Parts: sequence; structure tokens; C-alpha cells
Amino acid sequence: MGQLDEDRLFPTEEGARALARALYERVKGLPIVSPHGHTDPRWYAENAPFPDPAQLFVTPDHYVFRMLHSQGISLDDLGVPRADGSRAETDGRKIWRLFAENFYLFRGTPSRMWLEHAFQEVFGLTERFGPETADAFYDHISECLAKPEFLPRSLFERFGIEVIATTESPLDDLRWHRMIRDSDWTGRVVTAYRPDAVVDPEFEGFADNVARFGEIAGTDATTWDGYLEAHRNRRAYFKEFGATSSDHGHASARTEDLPLPEAVALFEKALNGACTPEEADAFRGHMLTEMARMSLDDGLVLQIHPGARRNHSAPMMQLFGRDKGFDIPGRTDYVAALKPLLDAVGTDPRLSIVLFTLDETAYARELAPLAGVYPSLKLGPAWWFYDSPEGMRRFREMTTETAGFYNTVGFNDDTRAFCSIPARHDVARRVDCAFLATLVRTGRLAEDEAFEVAQDLAYRLVKRAYKL
Amino acid sequence: MGQLDEDRLFPTEEGARALARALYERVKGLPIVSPHGHTDPRWYAENAPFPDPAQLFVTPDHYVFRMLHSQGISLDDLGVPRADGSRAETDGRKIWRLFAENFYLFRGTPSRMWLEHAFQEVFGLTERFGPETADAFYDHISECLAKPEFLPRSLFERFGIEVIATTESPLDDLRWHRMIRDSDWTGRVVTAYRPDAVVDPEFEGFADNVARFGEIAGTDATTWDGYLEAHRNRRAYFKEFGATSSDHGHASARTEDLPLPEAVALFEKALNGACTPEEADAFRGHMLTEMARMSLDDGLVLQIHPGARRNHSAPMMQLFGRDKGFDIPGRTDYVAALKPLLDAVGTDPRLSIVLFTLDETAYARELAPLAGVYPSLKLGPAWWFYDSPEGMRRFREMTTETAGFYNTVGFNDDTRAFCSIPARHDVARRVDCAFLATLVRTGRLAEDEAFEVAQDLAYRLVKRAYKL
Amino acid sequence: MGQLDEDRLFPTEEGARALARALYERVKGLPIVSPHGHTDPRWYAENAPFPDPAQLFVTPDHYVFRMLHSQGISLDDLGVPRADGSRAETDGRKIWRLFAENFYLFRGTPSRMWLEHAFQEVFGLTERFGPETADAFYDHISECLAKPEFLPRSLFERFGIEVIATTESPLDDLRWHRMIRDSDWTGRVVTAYRPDAVVDPEFEGFADNVARFGEIAGTDATTWDGYLEAHRNRRAYFKEFGATSSDHGHASARTEDLPLPEAVALFEKALNGACTPEEADAFRGHMLTEMARMSLDDGLVLQIHPGARRNHSAPMMQLFGRDKGFDIPGRTDYVAALKPLLDAVGTDPRLSIVLFTLDETAYARELAPLAGVYPSLKLGPAWWFYDSPEGMRRFREMTTETAGFYNTVGFNDDTRAFCSIPARHDVARRVDCAFLATLVRTGRLAEDEAFEVAQDLAYRLVKRAYKL
Repeated sequence: MGQLDEDRLFPTEEGARALARALYERVKGLPIVSPHGHTDPRWYAENAPFPDPAQLFVTPDHYVFRMLHSQGISLDDLGVPRADGSRAETDGRKIWRLFAENFYLFRGTPSRMWLEHAFQEVFGLTERFGPETADAFYDHISECLAKPEFLPRSLFERFGIEVIATTESPLDDLRWHRMIRDSDWTGRVVTAYRPDAVVDPEFEGFADNVARFGEIAGTDATTWDGYLEAHRNRRAYFKEFGATSSDHGHASARTEDLPLPEAVALFEKALNGACTPEEADAFRGHMLTEMARMSLDDGLVLQIHPGARRNHSAPMMQLFGRDKGFDIPGRTDYVAALKPLLDAVGTDPRLSIVLFTLDETAYARELAPLAGVYPSLKLGPAWWFYDSPEGMRRFREMTTETAGFYNTVGFNDDTRAFCSIPARHDVARRVDCAFLATLVRTGRLAEDEAFEVAQDLAYRLVKRAYKL
Repeated sequence: MGQLDEDRLFPTEEGARALARALYERVKGLPIVSPHGHTDPRWYAENAPFPDPAQLFVTPDHYVFRMLHSQGISLDDLGVPRADGSRAETDGRKIWRLFAENFYLFRGTPSRMWLEHAFQEVFGLTERFGPETADAFYDHISECLAKPEFLPRSLFERFGIEVIATTESPLDDLRWHRMIRDSDWTGRVVTAYRPDAVVDPEFEGFADNVARFGEIAGTDATTWDGYLEAHRNRRAYFKEFGATSSDHGHASARTEDLPLPEAVALFEKALNGACTPEEADAFRGHMLTEMARMSLDDGLVLQIHPGARRNHSAPMMQLFGRDKGFDIPGRTDYVAALKPLLDAVGTDPRLSIVLFTLDETAYARELAPLAGVYPSLKLGPAWWFYDSPEGMRRFREMTTETAGFYNTVGFNDDTRAFCSIPARHDVARRVDCAFLATLVRTGRLAEDEAFEVAQDLAYRLVKRAYKL
Repeated sequence: MGQLDEDRLFPTEEGARALARALYERVKGLPIVSPHGHTDPRWYAENAPFPDPAQLFVTPDHYVFRMLHSQGISLDDLGVPRADGSRAETDGRKIWRLFAENFYLFRGTPSRMWLEHAFQEVFGLTERFGPETADAFYDHISECLAKPEFLPRSLFERFGIEVIATTESPLDDLRWHRMIRDSDWTGRVVTAYRPDAVVDPEFEGFADNVARFGEIAGTDATTWDGYLEAHRNRRAYFKEFGATSSDHGHASARTEDLPLPEAVALFEKALNGACTPEEADAFRGHMLTEMARMSLDDGLVLQIHPGARRNHSAPMMQLFGRDKGFDIPGRTDYVAALKPLLDAVGTDPRLSIVLFTLDETAYARELAPLAGVYPSLKLGPAWWFYDSPEGMRRFREMTTETAGFYNTVGFNDDTRAFCSIPARHDVARRVDCAFLATLVRTGRLAEDEAFEVAQDLAYRLVKRAYKL
């Protein structure tokens, strides 16, 4: 029983629903391949119990606290840490009750679906969550978290995760990944190379970061050649810890392929903190092309996650710091922006670039046409605000006709909310099965093909695209 | 019988349809709260009969005459007044017949649905409208209009309007509102503060308007302090006539929060007619932030209706003047545009800003993410060209997953077509019930919750958001 | 039997499906009117057999080879000619097998649907196409192509084409059209006037083209007056070969209405190869207005196909030349862009402009509002990447409520893939019937009206809009 409808997210018409159900039966048990995300490798390394329910479900989840904040609830009252590390409210139960009283705000959102899935499937809670059940939920989840079967590694196994990627900076020593590797645990946790701190001249402490980068990599990274060499070294090091991809989250999709002297000059300006915003942007854009060139050598898949206007509220940034729900999508252009990189290396079929967007208008207009012709380009799944039933449906409806299924790469959960991982993959599998069932029932795909594609979308494509 | 399908706008699948019908039964009779619109307060003040059918349904309705014009019918032949006030065609029956002959043009449009609803529900006409029935309709409606039960106040009551807002300029003396207040009629008609004439340096006669503004408000509005004081005074005066909101219809959503000397300098330039277009735009943007600051004091809700490129055709503007169907939507940016205002006052939960758009691409990309985190922001419903079944569906599909239902504010009819008011609210209620039924049938919402949300969307949210 | 579902593209709900089927029965046999496309008039003139299956279905179809290329298959291996005219692979059967092995890539795409339709309906092949059936298909199609009933004129007749338009440059001597006219064949093939080569200062050899243009037209086209006169002459000449339209495919929808001296100055700069990109763009924009003025005199319908970023990949352009699948859509603005032309001639109901877009975000925001008021504007159907079931559905959903059906112009196949013509019209008819059936079943249109509109959309509107 419980709150979860067995047929959720399937088409309402009975014929299509029955087929969606059959397709889903085929894929629901497939292992989870999570090629990009932000879970903390320390969890798997230390395998310590998660703290209280509020710290598991509310405090760290920007989807959750941004919605509560939108209705006037202060982040302080939710126990979200301030920029100085202090937390105004530390009583987990109090936070939990506030969350429960306002749970109705999540009606119609994917967070609601993920949370109910976690309550029911992870913690066995089948009642409806709300003010009346808040304390019972809190007590039950607290008890669970103390048990061995709710330790991170146990959940990892219970979730059926075949492999999960975390995301680290080149300045990270990968100590947790080393600890996992050196342990007797066989769970597969890999890293990914996210070099913002050393490719973005506007990143806090860029010059210092580059200096440290050189030290870590054993090169003089304050020279252009040494800087590129440091990237190559660290990429190789990340590969030792399973990395198969790099990741780049610039505000735009701008790329550049500058003549060497220009690139060197920008790099020197960047080290001196003398870049204009335009020059900083050009440098970031050029580094995408350099990363693509390195990918041709070392085989790392290049992920581009552009388009977030980060930390939109100045006062909230000052009080609470980064990543507090104030990243807002903006328009993103791809056609002109990617041309320098694509002209340089884009027709090489050995290169694999996974493109994401926060601007859904680009799906049919730019992304599908680009991925539908360039051998190096693949489309990442619906992302962030669009990692949702309607968002995923729009993704398929607006990309499939031009790019097909085989220029897409399966699902990314991209999450730091561990317990939402099975829920998110489940939503993706259901939405894809619903889409396929509709194609079959409207004569656009044969039924046996739909079964094959469903398995491709749930499992095979992501493994192939990310070389996992 | 008649032309109206009892189940119109509900899902076609029987299970979802039945649930939508049940939800609609619960909300269809709720009172109409109309927090923003352009009906003429004089109607309710004088309670005089409406003139002939053509002047009720054709001549003043830009939705109707723009469609007829698009097929080559001249506005002159439709009796639309020219800029000089003259009307080429004044024979109501002739206009009506031309309308009837071309009524097929409205197939698939919301105007068709509103008109049929008014014919059937307001005038009891159940035959299909067209050339054969044109005269019969004309005669019947004419007869009705002469009867007491078709006077504005009677219709107001028959429509179940609990409260309706009109929109007036600060230069308006609110005489009609005064007359309503002084009458023995208990219908609730409130005003709203729309200061374009005195905040837009490019408005015709801006400097004269500001001078008159000062006279009316009893301040010297040609000084910055006196100008702001005049706004405060007039806002207070409008509140005496029930105003709970101000309204701002700029071409963009640009806001500014200028240092005082810059604001003053722009104001002086504006009074001297010396603003560049960029400076005029900056001044309008700054005034939005000033209005928001005043809202913190006096509690008026701030409505932003951006994005119309007004009076697109120069020759038509010259011949026929403003508001003749030639306002065309354009791209609208919100993320950077609203930042100055939001940085100044946007995290204050006492402030209430209702955002509208004519650029649907902003729903999922900008508006829902902004309203889903800023306590001051709420999303206005689908507006103008999108006040339609497909437009409303897109609004819900593209905003709910990120902003939920509770950062939206119910429905606005925003109309000057009096008889369309029940039809428009009916369409909104049906589309929302259809959306909710689909959520329930796809396992995204519990049935009892859907009944609660349906009532929130039809009645409660608008009252709360607009403090009505 | 075969691969084609009789009910394909109809709604899944049985009531709507039954009505869609009935509507489709009424229109499926209507003659095909193809007012804009790129089939080769030489086919109809010479009536020679088509070459092998690969050269019919793979090598010339950018939809097909771009998808194959996107998965790393080289254009060389597909026999696509290089810019120098050479073809690396000339073995049709080898190309065909490669195509068949990768046919699964087209799952969910309109190409798949068009190809299956052609295999089954044109060639009688009812098995599924793929590696196992590749040779059998190749042999069967090869045999067919040698038979008289598969010659171009026979297929033209079998397809039920009432009239088809090709597209030619003013520099074309229309020899094939003359040959068709002088033959005893009664098939109606008309030309259309596409003057890119002589209105775009950035076109290869612009000055030489203009010189030749003058020679052909018998004027001194290097003077402004002679240049305009040359256009008038060639338009008149094209009309002798049935032309009822001109066609313009600029990168943007920019129009200009420059004062004469400015236009002349730009023209002279263009002849001298001295235009900046901005000036070239302004000149192209001005020429659209000149073309519109000529249309007022000679009645040619003006088609605007803006928004393609042509030949996106520099290395592919160098190796393979134009039109090799690397045209990518970009954002297109219409509201400001069309204003100069519309202010000049846009309210004249004698003028007929058909607007297309590769930027679907403009449908509801710009195109429907513009076409819904300007008498000269009509909306062309979903185009190119959006000539697909989902694309056509979005077109109707996003334009009908504001522009209605009668500001649209039926379907354009716009293809050079001859055998896909019946398939494409069939898809359009099915999608429109599905849309109409849904309107009826949701109470937005009466059933008898839907039958009338279905026939308008399939046949009447295109004839009227294109004067065919």
C-alpha cells in the first residue's frame, strides 16, 4: 500500500498504460549506473551513520529548503548553516516539524515524489507525511539510521548501485577515494575531474589555486606548458581512481580556440588577477577546448553543464554563502558558443562530449540538431530543475525526433541527496517507459524495439557513453 | 443543450475525466475574485444599459477585431473608433453581420469559447452563432440589454463576483469609485494603482502629468522628495477606494536600485524631456524598486506585467491610436532584470510581487526558479494571449514542478470584456481541474489533496495573494 | 500488414482516436498540393529512372546521412560527394548495408516513418528493414526503379500530386521547366523565385552574379534601377513557368526600409565587395521590403525561411561543401525584425507573406500574435527539423489559440526526397486530424466543423494562400 501509486507516471489511457507497465517491469530492477553526481565520497569511505532525519532530508537539500524559503520560512529556522559555519537552529526535531507542517508546499513537485519514495522504499514508512505523522517519522528514521543496514555502504548495495561517480577538484587529494580503494568493500565509487578552481580566473583565489595545483601535480603550473602538464597529470591521477569524465559548469557554453600567444597572454593576466570579465570568459572558453584536446589523448568524457546564474541574491550570498538555492537558470546559446571547440575537434568520433542545459528552448532548436550531426556530441538528460516528470517528457519530445535515442546518454541523478537516488532513477525509467509506450501505441515504434530501447535508456547507453 | 460541452477542457481518458468533473463540481460555484482587470468603473457607478451587441462584443474587444483584421477586414468596417474619435461604421447590425460571417475564423481560439459561453450562459442563446443566426442573436441580445436584469450591477451579481478590481491612473479622480461607494449598492469594486503616466519618462506629456500629479496629491512633485511623497499620498488615496495592488506594464522587467543622486538626476532629466531611451528605461526600472519600498510600508501588492511591444504598426497607430490589437509580445529576461530590486527588498517576506510574462520560455527557466526561492515573488497566471486552455496548461506544466502551487496566485481575467468574465474563470477552473486530475491519475497527488488544491486555485490563493 | 500502423499518430484514447480516424478518412485521398520544395525539375523533364536505392534514399537525404554521421559513420563511407565532386564510396549495395545496420538509430524520428512509408507504400515492401533484409530490399527496389511505373512522372501521378513547386535561382534558365512545358505530359510543375545569389552580398560571386543577372534580364543590373528592373523581369519570366511565390532564406528575419540613397549606397558597396557583415545584413533586409513591394504589383507570395546557421562546421564545409547536414537553427526575432517591412506594406491585404521559423519559441510569442493581426502575414507550417509529429503538434498547440487555423497555409513538404512526399503529407494530415479530434472531444470545436477544417488544412488553405 502506502503513498506510492504502482502505476505512477504511466499514461492514463489503459492500452498505453499496460505497455508502459510491461516495459517498466523489464527495466525496474536493472542496476543503477550513476555517472555524475555530488554524493560525498567520505560517506562510503568512513561508512558512518547518517545524522538525524533533518540533516538527511532538509538541511542539505537545496530543492527542499528553497521551496520552504519561498514561503517566508527563514533558512536559519531550517538549520541551514550560515556562511560562517554557524547554525541558528540545531534541534533536528524542531526543523523536522517545520518541514512537515509545510510539506503541502511540495504538491506537484518532484521533491515530493522523491521524498515519499525514500520514506516508503528506504524506511518502510507507508503513512502520509505531514504534521500529524512528523514525530513518528522522525523517531522511526532516527532508529533506522542507527542500524547497520542503513549505513552508507549498506544503502549503496540495497539501492542496486553498480557504480557511482562523485565530483572532485584537481586540488582534492582524493583521500576518501583512496580509503575506499584500500578498504575491503567492493562498491564501485569513482571520481570525476572538475577543474573550476583552476580554470576560472574569477574563482576565489585563482592564482593561489594554480600555484597549489602545480605543487600537487609536480609541475610549474604558473607557466602555460606547466599548467597544461599539471592538468594532464591530475587527470591521469583521477583516472587511477576510476574517473572516466571531466565536468565543467560555466555560466555559458562559450568555447574558444585561441592562438597560442593569446591563450598564454590571457593565462598570465588571469594569474595576475588582471582579466576583465570578458577575458575571464574567453579563458574559460579556451580551456574547454584544451580539455577536449586532452580528452582525445586520455579518453575522459567531457561534460558541459552551462547556464546557471549562481548565487543570484547578494544579501543571501553574504549571509549564507554559495549553493543555497539561489542559482537561477538563464538563456544559453550553443550554436555559436560551441563552434570554436567543434571546429577544432568536434568531428573526431573518438571524442565524447555530453551537453546539458538549463534552457529547455535549446533542446529542439540547438542541442538536438547539433548532437544529431556531430560525432563527438551527446545529449545529457534533463537536468536540475528539469529532473522531473514533465521536464523529462519535454526532453524526449523535443530531442528524439532530431537526435534519436542513441545520441542521448541515459540518466544522471546529479544529486547530493543520497536517499533520492533510487527514486530519481525510478522516475526516469517510468517516464521513459511512458514515452516509449506512447510511441508504440501511436505507431511510431514497434513493441519489441521499445523493450530494447527501454533497456538502452535505463542501463546500456550510460555505460557506453561514460565508459563505465 | 446548446453549444457548450458539459465536459469541455477535461482530459479525454475516462478515469481522469471523471475525476476532473468531480473536482470541477466542487469549485464551479465558488465566487469570482477578480483581482486585476480593466472593466470600466463607470458601468457599476451609473448602472446604465450596455449599448448594442456590436458595441458589447466586437468594437471594444481587441481579441475579436484583431482576428477579423488579420483576414483583411478593415477596422473601419468593424466600427472601431479612429484616433480622432470618429467611427466609420456605426450601424451595429451591419458590424454584427460581418462578425457573424467571419465567426468561423475563431475556431480553436479562446475567444470562440468565451463568446459561446456568454451567448449561452448570459443570454440564453443555445443555437450556433453564424451568418444564419446573426440577426436573431442581434435582436435577442438587444432586447436583453434593455432589461434591468442585464444592467451592469445585475450581471455583476449574476456572475457571482465577490470583488473586482479596476485599474486607474494616479491622475484619475476615482469619481466612479466614489459614486459606487456613495451608492446603496453593495457590490465590491476596488481600484488599483497604475502609475505609467507619471513614472514613464516616455509617456505622452510626462512633465505635465507630474505637475498635475503634484497638484492632485498636494505636494511639489517636481522635486524628488515631493514626487515620492505624491506617490505615497495617491497610493493612500487609492487604498481608501479598496486598492490592494499597484500595476506596472513596462516593455521589460528591468529594475534598478540607483544611488540617490543618480535617481534624482534622471528624474530631472525626465522632467526636462532630456532622457535618452536608455535613461528613460533606467528611470522606469528604478521606480519599480521605489514602488516596492513603498509596498513594504503600505502593503500594496506589486504587479509586474512586462514584455509587450506596444502599438507595433506605425501606420495603424497613426490612424487608430493605442490598444488596437497591435501589441506584440517579445522576449523578456527576468534573472538579471529583477536582481537590483530583489537585492534591495526581495528577501523580505512582507513584500508581495506578482510576476507575469508574455514570454512563456521564462516559465520553467526563470520565473518558477525565482518564485520558488524568493519569499517576495509569486507567479501571476497565464496572461493575455496565453489566457487560454493550452496557455494555462503550459503554465501549470512548466511552473508547478519548481514553484509548486503555493507560489501562484489563482486566476486573473484581466479583461475589459465584461461578459467574458464568467467564461474566463470557468476555463481556468476547468483547466486546473484537468491538470489536477491528471496528477492524481498518474500518482503525483492524492485525491483528497486535489480537492483542496482545486479550491485553493479557484478561490483561496487569489484572496490571500491580493489581500482581498 | 507491414510495418505501418493504420492508426498511427492518432490519439490513444478510443473516442478521440475514432474521430481522428473518421476525419482522416475524409482527407487522406485529397490531392497533394506541394507549394514549396526542392525536388529537381530535371526528373520530371527527362523522366529518367532513378539510380540505385542508396542514391535514392541515403546519399542525397541530409536527414539520413546526418544521423548516421552523428554516430561516427563517415560521409565518405555513405557515398556523399565531397566538395570537389568525388565520391569515396560508389558501391550502392555497400552503402545500403551500412544504412541498414544502423537503421535502429532512426527509432523515434520522422525519417524512420517516412522511409517505412516509402518502402511499404511506394515499393510494396512490408517486412521490417534492417541488416537481415537489406539485400532483399536493395534488390527489390533496384528492380522497381527499372520499371516504367517507377519513373518520376509515374510516381508523380501515383502520389496524387496536383501541383508541385520547385525552387530556382534567377540565374537559372528554367530549361527543365521549359522542357516539361513543351512536353506532352500534363503534370503540373511550377518554379519559385529564390534570389539569394543576387540579393545577398555575402553570396559567393555576388558581383559576378549581378552582372550575369543583368545580362539574363536584359537590363544593366549594376545600377540600382536596372537591378530592380532585372528582378521585375525575372519574376515575370518565372511567372510564365507557373511561379506564384518567391522564397528567401536569410540567417535572420531582419527587414529594412531604407531611404533610397542609403539603399543605393549599400548596393554599390555590395557590388564592390566592400560591405561589412552588418551592411550586408541591412542590404538583405532592405531587399525583402523591395521584394514585398514587387509582390504588390505582380502578386507573388513572399516566403521567409529564416534562422538557419548554415554550414556550421568549418572543416566539414571545406571537405564536403554546403548542405551536408550542418545547418543548425538559432534564435530568431520577428517582432522588431519585421517592423520596417510591415510598416511599409504590412497592412495591405493584397500582400501575402508566409513566415516560417526554426525557433519554435517564436510560435506563441511572436508569430501567432503577428499573423493574428496583420492582414499580409500567414504562418507557414512546422518546418525542417520540426516537420515531424511532435513538431506539428507543437505548431498547432502554440499558434491556433492566437492565430486560428485561417492564418495558416496548410502543409509544405519542402523536400528533395521525392519518395517521402506522400509520407510527409500523410503525417501532416494525421497529426492535424488528431489535433482536431482532440479539440472536438474536449469541447473546443463542433464535429462538423472539424470535418471542414480538416479539409481546409489538407487542401484548401494551401491552394488559396499560394494561389495555386
